Amino acid sequence: MIYNMEDSHNLTWQSTTVGKQDRRQRNGHESFVLWFTGLSGAGKSTIANLLEQVLFAQGIHTYLLDGDNVRMGLNSDLGFSATERRENIRRVAEVAKLFVDAGVVTLTAFISPYQSDREMARSLFTDTEFVEVYVDCPIEVCATRDPKGLYLRAQSGQIKEFTGVAAPYETPQQPDIVLHTNLQTPLECVQQILGCLVSWGLLSKDNSLANSLEDTCVTREGQR
Amino acid sequence: MIYNMEDSHNLTWQSTTVGKQDRRQRNGHESFVLWFTGLSGAGKSTIANLLEQVLFAQGIHTYLLDGDNVRMGLNSDLGFSATERRENIRRVAEVAKLFVDAGVVTLTAFISPYQSDREMARSLFTDTEFVEVYVDCPIEVCATRDPKGLYLRAQSGQIKEFTGVAAPYETPQQPDIVLHTNLQTPLECVQQILGCLVSWGLLSKDNSLANSLEDTCVTREGQR
Repeated sequence: MIYNMEDSHNLTWQSTTVGKQDRRQRNGHESFVLWFTGLSGAGKSTIANLLEQVLFAQGIHTYLLDGDNVRMGLNSDLGFSATERRENIRRVAEVAKLFVDAGVVTLTAFISPYQSDREMARSLFTDTEFVEVYVDCPIEVCATRDPKGLYLRAQSGQIKEFTGVAAPYETPQQPDIVLHTNLQTPLECVQQILGCLVSWGLLSKDNSLANSLEDTCVTREGQR
Repeated sequence: MIYNMEDSHNLTWQSTTVGKQDRRQRNGHESFVLWFTGLSGAGKSTIANLLEQVLFAQGIHTYLLDGDNVRMGLNSDLGFSATERRENIRRVAEVAKLFVDAGVVTLTAFISPYQSDREMARSLFTDTEFVEVYVDCPIEVCATRDPKGLYLRAQSGQIKEFTGVAAPYETPQQPDIVLHTNLQTPLECVQQILGCLVSWGLLSKDNSLANSLEDTCVTREGQR
Protein backbone atom coordinates (compact mmCIF):
# COMPACT_ATOMS: atom_id res chain seq x y z
CA MET A 1 0.00 0.00 0.00
CA ILE A 2 1.38 3.38 -0.98
CA TYR A 3 -0.04 6.69 0.11
CA ASN A 4 1.12 10.17 0.93
CA MET A 5 -0.49 11.56 4.06
CA GLU A 6 1.84 14.56 4.43
CA ASP A 7 -0.82 16.86 3.12
CA SER A 8 -4.16 15.25 3.47
CA HIS A 9 -5.72 17.65 1.01
CA ASN A 10 -3.30 16.55 -1.68
CA LEU A 11 -3.43 12.90 -0.75
CA THR A 12 -1.86 10.89 -3.51
CA TRP A 13 -3.78 7.72 -4.00
CA GLN A 14 -2.16 4.86 -5.80
CA SER A 15 -4.72 2.41 -7.02
CA THR A 16 -3.48 -0.38 -4.78
CA THR A 17 -5.47 -1.93 -2.01
CA VAL A 18 -4.78 -2.78 1.61
CA GLY A 19 -3.62 -6.39 1.40
CA LYS A 20 -3.08 -9.45 3.55
CA GLN A 21 0.62 -8.73 4.08
CA ASP A 22 -0.15 -5.13 5.13
CA ARG A 23 -2.57 -6.39 7.77
CA ARG A 24 -0.24 -9.10 9.02
CA GLN A 25 2.58 -6.61 9.34
CA ARG A 26 0.38 -4.18 11.25
CA ASN A 27 -1.03 -6.89 13.52
CA GLY A 28 2.44 -8.24 14.19
CA HIS A 29 1.59 -11.88 13.57
CA GLU A 30 0.76 -14.35 10.83
CA SER A 31 -2.82 -15.15 9.89
CA PHE A 32 -4.05 -18.70 9.32
CA VAL A 33 -6.95 -20.98 10.08
CA LEU A 34 -7.07 -23.59 12.86
CA TRP A 35 -9.59 -26.09 11.53
CA PHE A 36 -10.97 -28.17 14.43
CA THR A 37 -12.71 -31.38 13.39
CA GLY A 38 -14.18 -34.17 15.48
CA LEU A 39 -17.34 -35.73 16.83
CA SER A 40 -19.99 -33.81 18.69
CA GLY A 41 -18.88 -33.73 22.32
CA ALA A 42 -15.20 -34.30 21.48
CA GLY A 43 -14.33 -30.85 22.79
CA LYS A 44 -13.80 -28.77 19.63
CA SER A 45 -15.59 -25.66 20.91
CA THR A 46 -14.19 -25.94 24.43
CA ILE A 47 -10.60 -26.09 23.21
CA ALA A 48 -11.04 -23.51 20.44
CA ASN A 49 -12.63 -21.16 22.95
CA LEU A 50 -9.87 -21.57 25.51
CA LEU A 51 -7.22 -21.18 22.83
CA GLU A 52 -8.87 -18.01 21.57
CA GLN A 53 -8.86 -16.53 25.05
CA VAL A 54 -5.16 -17.28 25.47
CA LEU A 55 -4.29 -15.84 22.05
CA PHE A 56 -6.44 -12.75 22.57
CA ALA A 57 -4.75 -12.13 25.93
CA GLN A 58 -1.44 -12.10 24.07
CA GLY A 59 -2.62 -9.38 21.70
CA ILE A 60 -3.27 -11.66 18.76
CA HIS A 61 -6.24 -10.87 16.51
CA THR A 62 -8.53 -13.88 16.50
CA TYR A 63 -12.01 -14.94 15.51
CA LEU A 64 -13.91 -18.13 16.18
CA LEU A 65 -16.41 -19.45 13.65
CA ASP A 66 -18.72 -22.06 15.11
CA GLY A 67 -22.27 -23.29 15.06
CA ASP A 68 -23.41 -20.47 17.29
CA ASN A 69 -22.49 -17.66 14.92
CA VAL A 70 -22.56 -19.43 11.52
CA ARG A 71 -25.31 -22.05 11.66
CA MET A 72 -27.68 -19.44 13.10
CA GLY A 73 -26.79 -16.78 10.53
CA LEU A 74 -24.99 -17.30 7.24
CA ASN A 75 -25.90 -20.98 7.04
CA SER A 76 -29.35 -20.83 8.58
CA ASP A 77 -30.74 -22.08 5.25
CA LEU A 78 -28.81 -25.37 5.44
CA GLY A 79 -29.76 -28.70 7.01
CA PHE A 80 -27.62 -31.74 7.75
CA SER A 81 -27.78 -33.88 4.61
CA ALA A 82 -24.43 -34.77 3.02
CA THR A 83 -24.99 -32.08 0.36
CA GLU A 84 -25.89 -29.42 2.91
CA ARG A 85 -23.00 -30.39 5.18
CA ARG A 86 -20.70 -29.97 2.20
CA GLU A 87 -22.15 -26.52 1.44
CA ASN A 88 -21.92 -25.63 5.14
CA ILE A 89 -18.22 -26.48 5.15
CA ARG A 90 -17.61 -24.74 1.82
CA ARG A 91 -19.08 -21.49 3.15
CA VAL A 92 -17.22 -21.75 6.45
CA ALA A 93 -13.97 -22.29 4.55
CA GLU A 94 -14.66 -19.32 2.26
CA VAL A 95 -15.47 -17.08 5.22
CA ALA A 96 -12.35 -18.31 7.04
CA LYS A 97 -10.39 -17.37 3.93
CA LEU A 98 -11.76 -13.82 4.14
CA PHE A 99 -10.77 -13.60 7.81
CA VAL A 100 -7.28 -14.91 7.07
CA ASP A 101 -7.07 -12.30 4.29
CA ALA A 102 -8.07 -9.75 6.94
CA GLY A 103 -5.02 -10.77 9.00
CA VAL A 104 -6.94 -12.69 11.65
CA VAL A 105 -6.04 -16.01 13.30
CA THR A 106 -9.27 -17.84 12.53
CA LEU A 107 -10.55 -20.82 14.52
CA THR A 108 -13.32 -22.99 13.10
CA ALA A 109 -15.16 -25.56 15.21
CA PHE A 110 -17.40 -27.79 13.10
CA ILE A 111 -17.74 -31.57 13.02
CA SER A 112 -16.76 -31.48 9.30
CA PRO A 113 -17.07 -35.28 9.03
CA TYR A 114 -16.02 -35.80 5.40
CA GLN A 115 -12.40 -36.06 4.33
CA SER A 116 -13.20 -34.63 0.88
CA ASP A 117 -14.83 -31.55 2.43
CA ARG A 118 -11.83 -30.93 4.69
CA GLU A 119 -9.55 -31.31 1.67
CA MET A 120 -11.70 -28.82 -0.23
CA ALA A 121 -11.35 -26.40 2.71
CA ARG A 122 -7.59 -26.90 2.81
CA SER A 123 -7.33 -26.29 -0.95
CA LEU A 124 -8.46 -22.67 -0.47
CA PHE A 125 -5.33 -21.87 1.56
CA THR A 126 -1.58 -21.99 1.19
CA ASP A 127 0.27 -24.82 2.95
CA THR A 128 1.15 -22.65 5.92
CA GLU A 129 -2.30 -21.06 6.29
CA PHE A 130 -4.30 -24.20 7.10
CA VAL A 131 -3.83 -26.21 10.29
CA GLU A 132 -6.12 -29.22 10.68
CA VAL A 133 -6.68 -30.11 14.33
CA TYR A 134 -8.26 -33.50 14.86
CA VAL A 135 -10.03 -33.56 18.21
CA ASP A 136 -10.05 -37.29 18.79
CA CYS A 137 -12.24 -38.85 21.45
CA PRO A 138 -13.98 -42.25 21.57
CA ILE A 139 -17.64 -41.92 20.71
CA GLU A 140 -18.58 -43.67 23.97
CA VAL A 141 -16.90 -40.85 25.89
CA CYS A 142 -18.52 -38.17 23.70
CA ALA A 143 -21.90 -39.80 24.21
CA THR A 144 -21.36 -39.84 27.97
CA ARG A 145 -20.47 -36.14 28.01
CA ASP A 146 -23.36 -35.27 25.67
CA PRO A 147 -23.54 -31.64 26.90
CA LYS A 148 -26.58 -30.83 24.76
CA GLY A 149 -28.33 -34.18 25.06
CA LEU A 150 -27.85 -34.76 21.33
CA TYR A 151 -26.62 -38.36 21.52
CA LEU A 152 -29.61 -39.34 23.61
CA ARG A 153 -31.95 -37.77 21.08
CA ALA A 154 -30.06 -39.32 18.15
CA GLN A 155 -30.15 -42.79 19.68
CA SER A 156 -33.90 -42.49 20.19
CA GLY A 157 -34.29 -41.41 16.56
CA GLN A 158 -35.31 -37.82 17.32
CA ILE A 159 -32.31 -36.47 15.38
CA LYS A 160 -31.63 -37.94 11.97
CA GLU A 161 -28.20 -38.06 10.31
CA PHE A 162 -26.33 -37.51 13.57
CA THR A 163 -22.60 -38.00 13.03
CA GLY A 164 -21.28 -41.18 14.64
CA VAL A 165 -24.79 -42.58 15.16
CA ALA A 166 -26.60 -42.46 11.81
CA ALA A 167 -24.07 -40.57 9.67
CA PRO A 168 -20.36 -41.29 9.13
CA TYR A 169 -17.35 -39.51 10.59
CA GLU A 170 -14.32 -40.04 8.39
CA THR A 171 -11.13 -40.02 10.49
CA PRO A 172 -8.65 -37.39 9.24
CA GLN A 173 -5.90 -39.02 7.19
CA GLN A 174 -3.15 -36.44 7.71
CA PRO A 175 -4.15 -33.97 10.41
CA ASP A 176 -1.53 -31.45 11.47
CA ILE A 177 -2.36 -31.89 15.15
CA VAL A 178 -4.14 -34.72 16.98
CA LEU A 179 -5.64 -34.13 20.40
CA HIS A 180 -6.92 -36.91 22.66
CA THR A 181 -9.50 -35.27 24.84
CA ASN A 182 -10.25 -38.43 26.77
CA LEU A 183 -6.67 -38.32 28.04
CA GLN A 184 -5.71 -34.62 27.95
CA THR A 185 -7.24 -31.64 29.72
CA PRO A 186 -8.35 -28.66 27.61
CA LEU A 187 -5.35 -26.67 28.84
CA GLU A 188 -2.97 -29.45 27.84
CA CYS A 189 -4.55 -29.48 24.41
CA VAL A 190 -4.10 -25.71 24.11
CA GLN A 191 -0.46 -25.99 25.18
CA GLN A 192 0.11 -28.67 22.56
CA ILE A 193 -1.39 -26.47 19.82
CA LEU A 194 0.61 -23.42 20.92
CA GLY A 195 3.78 -25.47 20.89
CA CYS A 196 3.10 -26.61 17.34
CA LEU A 197 2.29 -23.09 16.13
CA VAL A 198 5.57 -21.80 17.56
CA SER A 199 7.44 -24.78 16.11
CA TRP A 200 6.00 -24.04 12.68
CA GLY A 201 6.80 -20.33 12.83
CA LEU A 202 3.14 -19.31 12.93
CA LEU A 203 3.45 -17.80 16.42
CA SER A 204 6.44 -16.10 17.97
CA LYS A 205 8.43 -17.75 20.76
CA ASP A 206 7.42 -15.22 23.40
CA ASN A 207 4.29 -17.25 23.88
CA SER A 208 4.66 -18.24 27.51
CA LEU A 209 2.32 -21.23 27.27
CA ALA A 210 4.17 -22.84 24.38
CA ASN A 211 6.52 -25.25 26.06
CA SER A 212 8.48 -28.33 25.17
CA LEU A 213 5.37 -29.90 23.69
CA GLU A 214 6.75 -28.51 20.44
CA ASP A 215 8.55 -31.82 20.15
CA THR A 216 5.29 -33.67 19.62
CA CYS A 217 4.49 -31.87 16.38
CA VAL A 218 4.60 -33.42 12.96
CA THR A 219 6.72 -31.76 10.30
CA ARG A 220 4.59 -29.75 7.91
CA GLU A 221 5.17 -28.86 4.29
CA GLY A 222 6.23 -25.26 3.92
CA GLN A 223 7.41 -25.19 7.55
CA ARG A 224 9.56 -22.18 8.28
CA MET B 1 -13.63 -12.08 29.37
CA ILE B 2 -11.99 -13.13 32.62
CA TYR B 3 -8.75 -15.01 32.92
CA ASN B 4 -5.79 -15.29 35.22
CA MET B 5 -2.46 -15.32 33.43
CA GLU B 6 -0.29 -14.83 36.53
CA ASP B 7 0.64 -18.45 36.51
CA SER B 8 0.06 -19.87 33.10
CA HIS B 9 0.23 -23.40 34.40
CA ASN B 10 -2.65 -22.72 36.73
CA LEU B 11 -4.61 -20.67 34.23
CA THR B 12 -8.10 -20.17 35.54
CA TRP B 13 -10.54 -20.40 32.73
CA GLN B 14 -13.97 -18.94 33.17
CA SER B 15 -16.39 -20.27 30.61
CA THR B 16 -16.88 -16.94 28.92
CA THR B 17 -15.87 -16.10 25.39
CA VAL B 18 -13.99 -13.26 23.77
CA GLY B 19 -16.77 -10.89 22.73
CA LYS B 20 -17.43 -7.92 20.49
CA GLN B 21 -16.86 -5.40 23.24
CA ASP B 22 -13.55 -7.02 24.19
CA ARG B 23 -12.34 -6.69 20.61
CA ARG B 24 -13.55 -3.12 20.23
CA GLN B 25 -11.84 -2.13 23.43
CA ARG B 26 -8.58 -3.76 22.35
CA ASN B 27 -8.74 -2.24 18.85
CA GLY B 28 -9.53 1.18 20.28
CA HIS B 29 -12.44 1.93 17.97
CA GLU B 30 -16.04 1.00 17.28
CA SER B 31 -16.94 -1.64 14.74
CA PHE B 32 -19.72 -1.17 12.18
CA VAL B 33 -20.52 -1.71 8.51
CA LEU B 34 -20.37 0.92 5.79
CA TRP B 35 -22.82 -0.39 3.21
CA PHE B 36 -22.09 1.17 -0.18
CA THR B 37 -24.93 0.89 -2.70
CA GLY B 38 -25.27 2.30 -6.22
CA LEU B 39 -25.12 1.55 -9.91
CA SER B 40 -22.21 -0.19 -11.58
CA GLY B 41 -19.68 2.51 -12.36
CA ALA B 42 -21.00 4.91 -9.68
CA GLY B 43 -17.72 4.62 -7.77
CA LYS B 44 -18.54 2.29 -4.85
CA SER B 45 -15.33 0.29 -5.01
CA THR B 46 -13.15 3.32 -5.74
CA ILE B 47 -14.43 5.23 -2.73
CA ALA B 48 -14.55 2.22 -0.41
CA ASN B 49 -11.00 1.38 -1.37
CA LEU B 50 -9.69 4.89 -0.79
CA LEU B 51 -11.57 5.11 2.51
CA GLU B 52 -10.11 1.80 3.63
CA GLN B 53 -6.59 3.01 2.87
CA VAL B 54 -7.15 6.18 4.90
CA LEU B 55 -8.65 4.26 7.84
CA PHE B 56 -5.93 1.61 7.77
CA ALA B 57 -3.25 4.33 7.80
CA GLN B 58 -4.85 5.62 11.00
CA GLY B 59 -4.54 2.25 12.72
CA ILE B 60 -8.15 1.25 12.31
CA HIS B 61 -8.94 -2.40 11.67
CA THR B 62 -10.86 -2.62 8.41
CA TYR B 63 -12.00 -5.10 5.80
CA LEU B 64 -13.59 -4.59 2.40
CA LEU B 65 -16.08 -7.10 1.05
CA ASP B 66 -16.67 -6.69 -2.67
CA GLY B 67 -17.23 -8.63 -5.85
CA ASP B 68 -13.57 -9.53 -6.11
CA ASN B 69 -13.38 -11.49 -2.88
CA VAL B 70 -17.02 -12.55 -2.37
CA ARG B 71 -18.52 -13.18 -5.80
CA MET B 72 -15.46 -15.27 -6.71
CA GLY B 73 -15.48 -17.27 -3.49
CA LEU B 74 -18.34 -17.56 -1.01
CA ASN B 75 -20.98 -16.61 -3.57
CA SER B 76 -19.49 -18.25 -6.64
CA ASP B 77 -22.59 -20.46 -6.82
CA LEU B 78 -24.92 -17.47 -7.31
CA GLY B 79 -26.05 -15.73 -10.50
CA PHE B 80 -27.85 -12.43 -10.96
CA SER B 81 -31.55 -13.26 -10.84
CA ALA B 82 -33.60 -11.37 -8.25
CA THR B 83 -33.56 -14.46 -6.00
CA GLU B 84 -29.83 -14.94 -6.31
CA ARG B 85 -29.14 -11.23 -5.83
CA ARG B 86 -31.16 -11.47 -2.63
CA GLU B 87 -29.16 -14.47 -1.45
CA ASN B 88 -25.93 -12.71 -2.44
CA ILE B 89 -26.85 -9.73 -0.27
CA ARG B 90 -28.06 -11.93 2.59
CA ARG B 91 -24.73 -13.73 2.75
CA VAL B 92 -22.73 -10.52 2.43
CA ALA B 93 -24.73 -9.05 5.30
CA GLU B 94 -24.23 -12.14 7.45
CA VAL B 95 -20.49 -12.13 6.78
CA ALA B 96 -20.34 -8.40 7.51
CA LYS B 97 -22.04 -9.16 10.81
CA LEU B 98 -19.29 -11.65 11.68
CA PHE B 99 -16.63 -9.04 10.85
CA VAL B 100 -18.38 -6.41 12.95
CA ASP B 101 -18.54 -8.98 15.75
CA ALA B 102 -14.80 -9.43 15.24
CA GLY B 103 -14.32 -5.70 15.95
CA VAL B 104 -13.62 -4.70 12.35
CA VAL B 105 -14.85 -1.63 10.45
CA THR B 106 -16.37 -3.45 7.50
CA LEU B 107 -16.94 -1.89 4.09
CA THR B 108 -19.22 -3.60 1.57
CA ALA B 109 -19.36 -2.54 -2.09
CA PHE B 110 -22.20 -4.22 -3.95
CA ILE B 111 -24.87 -2.75 -6.22
CA SER B 112 -27.53 -4.11 -3.81
CA PRO B 113 -30.35 -2.73 -5.98
CA TYR B 114 -33.39 -3.74 -3.91
CA GLN B 115 -34.65 -1.67 -1.00
CA SER B 116 -36.02 -4.76 0.74
CA ASP B 117 -32.63 -6.49 0.59
CA ARG B 118 -30.86 -3.46 2.03
CA GLU B 119 -33.46 -3.33 4.80
CA MET B 120 -32.88 -7.03 5.46
CA ALA B 121 -29.15 -6.31 5.73
CA ARG B 122 -29.77 -3.39 8.09
CA SER B 123 -32.02 -5.53 10.28
CA LEU B 124 -29.06 -7.72 11.24
CA PHE B 125 -27.33 -4.82 13.01
CA THR B 126 -28.01 -2.35 15.77
CA ASP B 127 -28.91 1.22 14.74
CA THR B 128 -25.36 2.45 15.22
CA GLU B 129 -23.69 -0.50 13.49
CA PHE B 130 -25.12 0.00 9.99
CA VAL B 131 -24.30 3.01 7.80
CA GLU B 132 -25.94 3.01 4.37
CA VAL B 133 -23.90 5.02 1.86
CA TYR B 134 -25.77 5.78 -1.35
CA VAL B 135 -23.26 6.39 -4.13
CA ASP B 136 -25.46 8.43 -6.44
CA CYS B 137 -24.49 9.08 -10.04
CA PRO B 138 -26.61 9.50 -13.17
CA ILE B 139 -26.67 6.32 -15.20
CA GLU B 140 -25.51 8.26 -18.29
CA VAL B 141 -22.31 9.17 -16.43
CA CYS B 142 -21.86 5.59 -15.14
CA ALA B 143 -22.32 4.27 -18.67
CA THR B 144 -19.72 6.71 -19.98
CA ARG B 145 -17.18 5.63 -17.35
CA ASP B 146 -17.98 1.95 -17.90
CA PRO B 147 -14.57 0.79 -16.61
CA LYS B 148 -15.24 -2.87 -17.36
CA GLY B 149 -17.22 -2.37 -20.57
CA LEU B 150 -20.31 -3.79 -18.87
CA TYR B 151 -22.81 -1.16 -20.03
CA LEU B 152 -21.75 -1.66 -23.63
CA ARG B 153 -22.24 -5.40 -23.31
CA ALA B 154 -25.56 -4.95 -21.49
CA GLN B 155 -26.90 -2.59 -24.15
CA SER B 156 -26.01 -5.06 -26.86
CA GLY B 157 -27.78 -7.81 -24.93
CA GLN B 158 -24.66 -9.78 -24.04
CA ILE B 159 -25.33 -9.35 -20.31
CA LYS B 160 -28.83 -10.04 -19.10
CA GLU B 161 -30.40 -8.51 -15.98
CA PHE B 162 -27.86 -5.68 -15.81
CA THR B 163 -28.92 -3.15 -13.19
CA GLY B 164 -30.11 0.12 -14.70
CA VAL B 165 -30.44 -1.41 -18.17
CA ALA B 166 -32.56 -4.54 -17.89
CA ALA B 167 -32.97 -4.82 -14.11
CA PRO B 168 -34.18 -2.19 -11.64
CA TYR B 169 -32.17 -0.12 -9.17
CA GLU B 170 -34.38 1.06 -6.33
CA THR B 171 -33.15 4.39 -5.00
CA PRO B 172 -32.42 4.23 -1.24
CA GLN B 173 -35.25 5.80 0.75
CA GLN B 174 -33.33 6.81 3.87
CA PRO B 175 -29.60 6.45 3.29
CA ASP B 176 -27.33 7.68 6.06
CA ILE B 177 -24.94 9.30 3.60
CA VAL B 178 -25.48 10.37 -0.02
CA LEU B 179 -22.49 10.92 -2.31
CA HIS B 180 -22.73 12.54 -5.75
CA THR B 181 -19.80 11.15 -7.67
CA ASN B 182 -20.57 13.15 -10.79
CA LEU B 183 -19.90 16.30 -8.74
CA GLN B 184 -17.48 15.18 -6.01
CA THR B 185 -13.99 13.70 -6.27
CA PRO B 186 -13.32 10.37 -4.50
CA LEU B 187 -11.32 12.22 -1.84
CA GLU B 188 -14.18 14.66 -1.21
CA CYS B 189 -16.50 11.67 -0.80
CA VAL B 190 -14.11 10.09 1.69
CA GLN B 191 -13.88 13.34 3.64
CA GLN B 192 -17.66 13.55 3.77
CA ILE B 193 -17.93 9.99 5.11
CA LEU B 194 -15.20 10.57 7.71
CA GLY B 195 -16.95 13.74 8.86
CA CYS B 196 -20.19 11.86 9.33
CA LEU B 197 -18.52 9.00 11.23
CA VAL B 198 -16.90 11.48 13.62
CA SER B 199 -20.17 13.39 13.96
CA TRP B 200 -21.97 10.16 14.88
CA GLY B 201 -19.32 9.09 17.39
CA LEU B 202 -18.22 6.10 15.31
CA LEU B 203 -14.73 7.53 14.82
CA SER B 204 -12.70 9.66 17.17
CA LYS B 205 -12.07 13.35 16.43
CA ASP B 206 -8.34 12.94 15.88
CA ASN B 207 -9.13 11.95 12.35
CA SER B 208 -7.28 14.63 10.45
CA LEU B 209 -9.30 14.24 7.28
CA ALA B 210 -12.64 14.69 9.00
CA ASN B 211 -13.39 18.37 8.59
CA SER B 212 -16.34 20.69 8.70
CA LEU B 213 -18.24 18.45 6.31
CA GLU B 214 -19.70 16.97 9.51
CA ASP B 215 -22.39 19.62 9.10
CA THR B 216 -23.75 17.90 6.02
CA CYS B 217 -24.69 14.73 7.90
CA VAL B 218 -28.21 13.70 8.68
CA THR B 219 -29.15 12.98 12.29
CA ARG B 220 -29.27 9.24 12.92
CA GLU B 221 -31.28 7.28 15.41
CA GLY B 222 -29.10 6.13 18.28
CA GLN B 223 -26.58 8.89 17.56
CA ARG B 224 -24.12 9.32 20.35
